[in-house]
Order: sequence, then C-alpha cells, then structure tokens
Amino acid sequence: MRVLKGAEVSAKIKEEVQAALEKYNGAAPKLAIIRVGENPDDMSYECGATKKMENFGLRVQSYVYPADITDADFKAEFTKINEDPDVTGILMLRPLPKQICEKDIEGMIDPAKDLDGISPVNIAKVFAGDDSGFAPCTAEAVIEVLKAAEIPMTGKRVTIVGRSMVVGKPLSMLMVKENATVTICHTKTKDLAGTCRNAEILVAAAGRAKMLNGDYVGQDAVVIDVGINVDENGKLCGDVDYDTVQEKAQAATPVPGGVGAVTTAVLAKHLVRAAGV
Amino acid sequence: MRVLKGAEVSAKIKEEVQAALEKYNGAAPKLAIIRVGENPDDMSYECGATKKMENFGLRVQSYVYPADITDADFKAEFTKINEDPDVTGILMLRPLPKQICEKDIEGMIDPAKDLDGISPVNIAKVFAGDDSGFAPCTAEAVIEVLKAAEIPMTGKRVTIVGRSMVVGKPLSMLMVKENATVTICHTKTKDLAGTCRNAEILVAAAGRAKMLNGDYVGQDAVVIDVGINVDENGKLCGDVDYDTVQEKAQAATPVPGGVGAVTTAVLAKHLVRAAGV
Repeated sequence: MRVLKGAEVSAKIKEEVQAALEKYNGAAPKLAIIRVGENPDDMSYECGATKKMENFGLRVQSYVYPADITDADFKAEFTKINEDPDVTGILMLRPLPKQICEKDIEGMIDPAKDLDGISPVNIAKVFAGDDSGFAPCTAEAVIEVLKAAEIPMTGKRVTIVGRSMVVGKPLSMLMVKENATVTICHTKTKDLAGTCRNAEILVAAAGRAKMLNGDYVGQDAVVIDVGINVDENGKLCGDVDYDTVQEKAQAATPVPGGVGAVTTAVLAKHLVRAAGV
Repeated sequence: MRVLKGAEVSAKIKEEVQAALEKYNGAAPKLAIIRVGENPDDMSYECGATKKMENFGLRVQSYVYPADITDADFKAEFTKINEDPDVTGILMLRPLPKQICEKDIEGMIDPAKDLDGISPVNIAKVFAGDDSGFAPCTAEAVIEVLKAAEIPMTGKRVTIVGRSMVVGKPLSMLMVKENATVTICHTKTKDLAGTCRNAEILVAAAGRAKMLNGDYVGQDAVVIDVGINVDENGKLCGDVDYDTVQEKAQAATPVPGGVGAVTTAVLAKHLVRAAGV
C-alpha cells in the first residue's frame, strides 16, 4: 500500500508559495490567528500553523483573548484586526465560547481575508464551484493530497463520511467540481460499511477514532483520513483503523503525518492569494 | 404505481398559507416578478406563478424590461423594487441577458426578500442546514412532495442526477438535512444507470428529455422528476421516461402535474414567510 504523506504535499505547496512570493514586493503577507481561551486543540493547531507560516517565509501574529471576553469586547477587537491593513488574512480558531455570537463574526469577516472560508460569501462560492473565494482549508487539503498523488477524481465514486461545515459538506462540493460522483454519509446512513466499500476514494471525516476498519474499505480503494483523535492509549489517531485497511487499500494517508500537515500548507497558500500574489 | 400529483401537495400548502394569512393584518404580501425580455419559458413560469399567488390570496406584480436594457438601468430598476416597502418578496426570472451582471444582483438582493434563494446569505444557510433562509423553490418542492406523500427520507439512499445551483446542489444539502444518504450524479458519472438503480429515492434534475428510463430505476424506488422539457412531438415531458418506469417504481411524479405545480406553491409559502407571518 502506498502511504500518502502530507509532508510531500506540503513541500510541493511550499514551492508554489515561494515562487509566488518572489514576484511580491513589500513585507511578507501576514496571518492573524485569533484565539479565545486556552483550548489545547486550538493551541496545538495555532502552534502548527505558526511554524508552517514561518517556514514558508510568511508573517504570523497571534491575537489571544481570555475565555470570558464579552461578545461586545470581542467584536471590537475582531473589527480592529479585520480592518488592519497590515493583516492580510485571518484564521479564527473555533468554536468560540458560547457568549460570543459566532454567526455574527461569520458575517463580519472580510471575505477577502477569510482564509478558512467561514463567511457566507465564501461558502456560497464553494457551493457554486466558483474558486475565486476561499474553501475551508481542511476540505481543500483533501483535494491537494489527491492531486499531488496524481489520483484522478473525474468519474470516480467518492464517499465522504461526515457532513460538517468544515470538511464533509464543502468537500462534497469541491469533489463535485472535480467531476467525482459523490456520496455523503453520516450517522443516519444505513449499511455504512457497504456504502463505504463501494467507494473508489473514501474520505473519513466523522471525528470518531478508528471507526472505519478494513470492513469499510473496498479492494484497491484510496483512503483519505481527515480525523484527528486520541486513542485509548493517549496516542493521536485518525477516523480510520490504519492497521486493518492496509491490505485492501491501494493508498492511504496516515495520522499524524497526512492531511493535517497539508491543511496548514493550504492556509499559507490562501494567505498568499489574499495578498493578491 | 402510486402517482404523486403536485396538485395535492399544492392544495396542502395552500391550506398552510391561508391559515397563516388569517393571522395577518394589512394588505396581502406582495410578490414582485422581475422579467427581462420575452423568453417563452420565463413567461410561462410567470403566468403559472401569477395564477398561483392570486389563487392563494396573495398579491403579485410583474416588472418587465426590454431584453436590451443596460446593466446600469436594470440595476437602478432592481434597486427600486428591492427597496420598495410594499414589495414583500422577489422572484427574478433567470438567466438574465448577458449584458447584465447576474452575480451583482445576487449580491444586491435583500436576503429577506430573496424567495428563490439566490443571495449568498441564503445559499450559505442552505449549505449549513439553517432553515431560517430561503432555499431555491424547486429544490424545496422535492422535499415537500416527499413529505406530503409521507415517504421518509432518513437513512434512505437518495440519488440526485444533476448538479445545478437551482436544484441538484441545494437539494443535496436539503436531503442531507433530512438525514438521507445522498449521492450526486452528473454527466461525468460512470455507470449512471447502476448508480441510479441503487437509489431508494431517485431525483431527476438533469434537464434532458426522458434520459432516465426503466433501466435506471430500482425495484420499488420512488422517482421524483424535476425536468421540464419538450419531447420530439412538441409535448411537455420530464427527465424520466415515465412510461418505462411504471412497472418498477413504487411511486413517481408526472410531468406536467408533478413538481412544477409544487414549486410555485413553495414560492407562495416563502412569500408569506417573508411577510413575517
């Protein structure tokens, strides 16, 4: 089985980003990472994204607020960042604490700085297959992994397990744009194993540790694992039980070291695009 | 085979609309139909929608412009209608002539008056499964037909043929919200017949006369035909070759007399909702 390593895809995107930057005058594009509170998942993602931006020659600044910040105070701070001409793009770690109305922020964020595609303007573009906007980075990372591995999507049976606004739903539209025949599965799907086995490309984005084992994988399928979970031994693992799929899959992404590494590379690519490079 | 007649669903929606109107004070909600040019399909739809609104006790006014109206002139006229407090909701017949930037109008239309869901705000809501906005009427009509016929969607294998922004894509999201396992097919789908035969509910929204025959229908499937085409004899027909599917399907919508009649009823329902009833 071929192991689809995120690092290789990320290196390829780094080349594209750096080629674009060579034509760019002035200070490097700057990413604003907005974090409210001290959620370990957020901090881990922030750390990874910061390293990636610096490695790619991009600027990054974190804006951190206390978990009990009021809705009004957060919106005032958000507006400053959103309007700051030195900020090229924004990544806001979510979910926000409950006292902050996330919907309002989605409506406020400048679509041109909305690198992770949370604004209705960008969501509508993803839906319409208009690639002038920003798709959620994780969804786009799946497409990047397949393209880098030269795995064609046109006409392929693609099954996506999960219907979130961060991966499942936007990815379904990106896959339709790539001319795949797309099936969206979720917790209410009957015979999930059979539906998954029918897929030529299986994308796991359910958020449940190792829920898809070999029984869910068709012979010679490509398996893309978007999940990031912690297993019973406290180790990082995906939604796919990697050990059990290796005999059937022709290719699969590992966790860690798969899609996650590509997500932050896509974020960097979006940042450079937001700079108009 | 059970024939799913649109008139019955429309009558049910009429009752809901009239019950809502009884609680409503003041002049009936008013629909503005905007038409540019003399396209026969547009005029036919306008005629049907006008009759339906009047039959439901709602007001309707057509705003008709010459096919060669300039982009600037059309936008000025559109803005007047969009801002008119007497206009409760808008239906703009599309596509517009090429000199008018349709994208701009999608961004301009007041989301609260956008009864056919063309604004990015409403598209994003459909995508998110947030039913506080307006979905495209035809996509929603399919859901109404199934609900009126008491055909459950949860866990069902639903295959949609077509990926337009008017039916296929928004319907896929409405179906996911109804907990269906949704497969989106299109011109690049390999083995379209086999994929369709696997569906428990098959929705034809491809826009090609009689392209789906009995070979595309699984035993006891429910077939919903969204197509409105003209056959070789000049008669109205759907995307489904109705005569050939009757032996296998457990239920199907005819054309004419199926989804089309429900689409304008959904438009009326949206109009009443736009009035805040």
